[in-house]
Amino acid sequence: MPRNGRPYNPVVTLNGWTLPWRMKDGWKEFHLIAEPVVREMAPGMKANLWGYNGQSPGPTIECVEGDKVRIFVTNKLPEHTTIHWHGILLPSGMDGVGGLSQPQIPVGKTFVYEFEMKKSGTFMYHPHADEMVQMAMGMMGFLVVHPKDPNLHRVDRDFVFLINAYAIDPGSRTPRVSEMMNFDLWSWNSRVFPGIDTLAVRRGDRVRIRMGNLTMTNHPIHLHGYDFEVTGTDGGWVKPTARWPEVTVDIPVGAMRAIEFDANEPGDWAFHCHKSHHTMNAMGHSVPTMIGVDHRDVARKIITLIPDYMVMGERGMADMGEMEMPIPENTLPMMTGQGPFGPIEMGGMFTVVKVREGLARNSYADPGWYKHPPGTVAYELKA
Amino acid sequence: MPRNGRPYNPVVTLNGWTLPWRMKDGWKEFHLIAEPVVREMAPGMKANLWGYNGQSPGPTIECVEGDKVRIFVTNKLPEHTTIHWHGILLPSGMDGVGGLSQPQIPVGKTFVYEFEMKKSGTFMYHPHADEMVQMAMGMMGFLVVHPKDPNLHRVDRDFVFLINAYAIDPGSRTPRVSEMMNFDLWSWNSRVFPGIDTLAVRRGDRVRIRMGNLTMTNHPIHLHGYDFEVTGTDGGWVKPTARWPEVTVDIPVGAMRAIEFDANEPGDWAFHCHKSHHTMNAMGHSVPTMIGVDHRDVARKIITLIPDYMVMGERGMADMGEMEMPIPENTLPMMTGQGPFGPIEMGGMFTVVKVREGLARNSYADPGWYKHPPGTVAYELKA
Amino acid sequence: MPRNGRPYNPVVTLNGWTLPWRMKDGWKEFHLIAEPVVREMAPGMKANLWGYNGQSPGPTIECVEGDKVRIFVTNKLPEHTTIHWHGILLPSGMDGVGGLSQPQIPVGKTFVYEFEMKKSGTFMYHPHADEMVQMAMGMMGFLVVHPKDPNLHRVDRDFVFLINAYAIDPGSRTPRVSEMMNFDLWSWNSRVFPGIDTLAVRRGDRVRIRMGNLTMTNHPIHLHGYDFEVTGTDGGWVKPTARWPEVTVDIPVGAMRAIEFDANEPGDWAFHCHKSHHTMNAMGHSVPTMIGVDHRDVARKIITLIPDYMVMGERGMADMGEMEMPIPENTLPMMTGQGPFGPIEMGGMFTVVKVREGLARNSYADPGWYKHPPGTVAYELKA
Repeated sequence: MPRNGRPYNPVVTLNGWTLPWRMKDGWKEFHLIAEPVVREMAPGMKANLWGYNGQSPGPTIECVEGDKVRIFVTNKLPEHTTIHWHGILLPSGMDGVGGLSQPQIPVGKTFVYEFEMKKSGTFMYHPHADEMVQMAMGMMGFLVVHPKDPNLHRVDRDFVFLINAYAIDPGSRTPRVSEMMNFDLWSWNSRVFPGIDTLAVRRGDRVRIRMGNLTMTNHPIHLHGYDFEVTGTDGGWVKPTARWPEVTVDIPVGAMRAIEFDANEPGDWAFHCHKSHHTMNAMGHSVPTMIGVDHRDVARKIITLIPDYMVMGERGMADMGEMEMPIPENTLPMMTGQGPFGPIEMGGMFTVVKVREGLARNSYADPGWYKHPPGTVAYELKA
Repeated sequence: MPRNGRPYNPVVTLNGWTLPWRMKDGWKEFHLIAEPVVREMAPGMKANLWGYNGQSPGPTIECVEGDKVRIFVTNKLPEHTTIHWHGILLPSGMDGVGGLSQPQIPVGKTFVYEFEMKKSGTFMYHPHADEMVQMAMGMMGFLVVHPKDPNLHRVDRDFVFLINAYAIDPGSRTPRVSEMMNFDLWSWNSRVFPGIDTLAVRRGDRVRIRMGNLTMTNHPIHLHGYDFEVTGTDGGWVKPTARWPEVTVDIPVGAMRAIEFDANEPGDWAFHCHKSHHTMNAMGHSVPTMIGVDHRDVARKIITLIPDYMVMGERGMADMGEMEMPIPENTLPMMTGQGPFGPIEMGGMFTVVKVREGLARNSYADPGWYKHPPGTVAYELKA
Repeated sequence: MPRNGRPYNPVVTLNGWTLPWRMKDGWKEFHLIAEPVVREMAPGMKANLWGYNGQSPGPTIECVEGDKVRIFVTNKLPEHTTIHWHGILLPSGMDGVGGLSQPQIPVGKTFVYEFEMKKSGTFMYHPHADEMVQMAMGMMGFLVVHPKDPNLHRVDRDFVFLINAYAIDPGSRTPRVSEMMNFDLWSWNSRVFPGIDTLAVRRGDRVRIRMGNLTMTNHPIHLHGYDFEVTGTDGGWVKPTARWPEVTVDIPVGAMRAIEFDANEPGDWAFHCHKSHHTMNAMGHSVPTMIGVDHRDVARKIITLIPDYMVMGERGMADMGEMEMPIPENTLPMMTGQGPFGPIEMGGMFTVVKVREGLARNSYADPGWYKHPPGTVAYELKA
């Protein structure tokens, strides 16, 4: 619960945190500093990004319907910027479109946005100045406006994250900012598996997960073990008559979705983008297929020249999830992760919703991860 | 209001017009001529396209539920063609699929389509003969069937456009017709920013915008300052219980969406595709990143060889929206446009919904554009 | 109707079949064998894929709400695998995520999945082990759970298929398994036009078509001649208040949609993906445009060197649907097919819904295809 201002039920930002504020003469004041940052995308790999207040994405802004907010934006980037408050109903001059609704904020200067939060919902903020480049560098943040009545749309767990993607070539650190489709790192809050927080909930909890997409393509986010409904978008709350039952929510670019379900079935439930390349880390996409090719004879000759040469891919790629191959510095393996039963063989946009009898607040790296989930039945393998 | 036939409330086609007709023995007769055309996509850039009646897209066809229409289609292209009436309920032989429902229309010949408009809604027409090529060249048009009762689904402003994309290499004029993904010009009605009409409405108007997508990917169309509902598709009108509140409508390929909102908040509201590469004009996508690279030393040496050489991209790309660089003939700059507060830094699928106390029918090029929009609050920049 | 177990109204799998089962002590037992298969994608082209029980996709599993199922999965692939039961509510240990919910099934071993079908609906199965590779090779299958009451959600025709895509270079047989976007063969149940079954129905039938997408991009599936509603997803049945009228259903990756309509209008109705490259077979996407280029003079010189040289593409590509050009072995022409009125000029994700007064159960290859559909009106071509 917040220390001052209207009461609300806070959200949990995956691998992130909520921006503090101060109350001043009835206004809630926030301060965002746009600046270059270093983001660890998963253990072993760091990226040079642009973000806010030391992080990409920037901190989550939480406020309450009816709040009057004043947001100071200081520009410590090497070029001008603005902030657009995506989905918020506000005066045209506060809308943050550089050149159209305001002059861009010059390097070293501070611009003050002031508006009232007219309705509750799920929103985001990002630049609208050199927009393609600045979003490709990681500039974005979540914005939640809670209902004035804390019992409206109430849930037990409320998670938020933004979907983004980076074109960082293996061995390098800074995104290529002109890339349209061939991204290497498909990320949630600028983190990739196994670096993404798990979503730990207590059995029986009503759970909401809010997501926004700032990449170049739709992301169909799939939850195992449950069906759910979309209860909100960046346009508002979806009325019950209009809701569809789903197990995969397709999140368009520049859109947000809140999904809800009752966590009644215990276990470790995979939660990921269903485009199978988006659950991989760095990889090449145009390599020839080796499946079914018997190249042992050629390999024998190659090995006389390159002793480390490995015969791979003839039988699929599961080998690559099991073994450690040398890769360039500051690069994540294509498939990685260890679960309670062996290699997970994933990367990118993958994590786990952990439904437990008692609340398990551990992260993926936590050994608690390895505990056999309740409800699991062990089966004998038969010949 | 139409001069003859059933009364209706006409639509406004962005950068386009409605096809005239004549009444003959109770039939509404239209004439479409398929032919090569030259389309100015924005000032300074012309494309060799294929279209109808001198334009790509072809003129909008407007008629009324219950109308019996007869459409003469004359083929002045260098190859055969047909027209498919997307979304219209009609006899199989009138459906326009070459080889399946009719012989293709040979070069120089005219085919006559006859059918009754059974229901009102938002539709389009395009070839179903050498379909990939002919749509890649710009052959398509909007088709609106108004309700028999002009007060049904009535709005104050009703805008229509088609979303298309062209692979025209910098310095050239004719699209590459085999391209699947790497398009250069992301356009609305074959126009790109700053060549797309603004949508001017009076404060308080009920506004409808109808869009159809004939590209190779979804386009998430985002409106600033408002939330809206999808009230119609190419399948019919969406009942109120099924509608979602949204600020970004994801328009699938081969689908149409009508959105509606009450224009109560005055101002200049950005309206654009939210895929950030789709609000750029011609650019390369696989260039290396220069961000953070200090290449002034190298630059000094290069300048001794190439005196015009410019150090760019080290600090982002905002420079490119501000300055004029030499580019190939018949090519639009990647980022362009000037607003009341400076460079807009946009291209492609971007325009503005202008909500005014009095109706402002000016286009983007009109100096009226620069007037400070009502509701804008000027803020001091602080150090 | 099934020979044993609860009664239900069976589905029709395009170019496929339903997996038999045996009843044992109140359990419905199925056996899936994961193994390499050869799939004829259309006459003249065979692919080396991985599938189940001799086919890709594997056989459709049909069962009934309340059924207790036991599924033996034997791994005859060259690497380990698992099966994930997409959309099914089950215990965490039966969820099939390799490493997370079970150890991967080693080569030569059998794993037994056991769970109860808690609700009716439209689901699928696929590996969750080396997932990207195994799905790129064709491992997937449909899973339908019928309602306990056979009159619930009852229709007259119920078709099912999965949407997939393969990167098989012209002249080769095995998919490139690392491809993310540049697929050559856009397929339904691993078949492409003209190899996809038609959907034959009797006039007046209530028709349901269920589709699931396991590619890397959305597929907007368009039906001519009808509007329809989405009545179900992999999350459950969509309530009537929430349904939209549509003519194109955009199917996200990792999602399923059931559409329904009343087949009241006789005829041959095209049914296809609306991304125009997805109704082509093998082609290059980055070739320069020849439209409007007069290269007859150059051609004369080339022909002195290469006598077979053909001047093509100057006037569009319709030529290519009409004539037979030499192409590499085991490769399908880009555009192909013959209809009652000439060349269809299609490939990939295209087939026809045939609505007849009497039921026509013929496939596309059947000469019945050429019969003039009822409701067709022949028109004179005019000069």
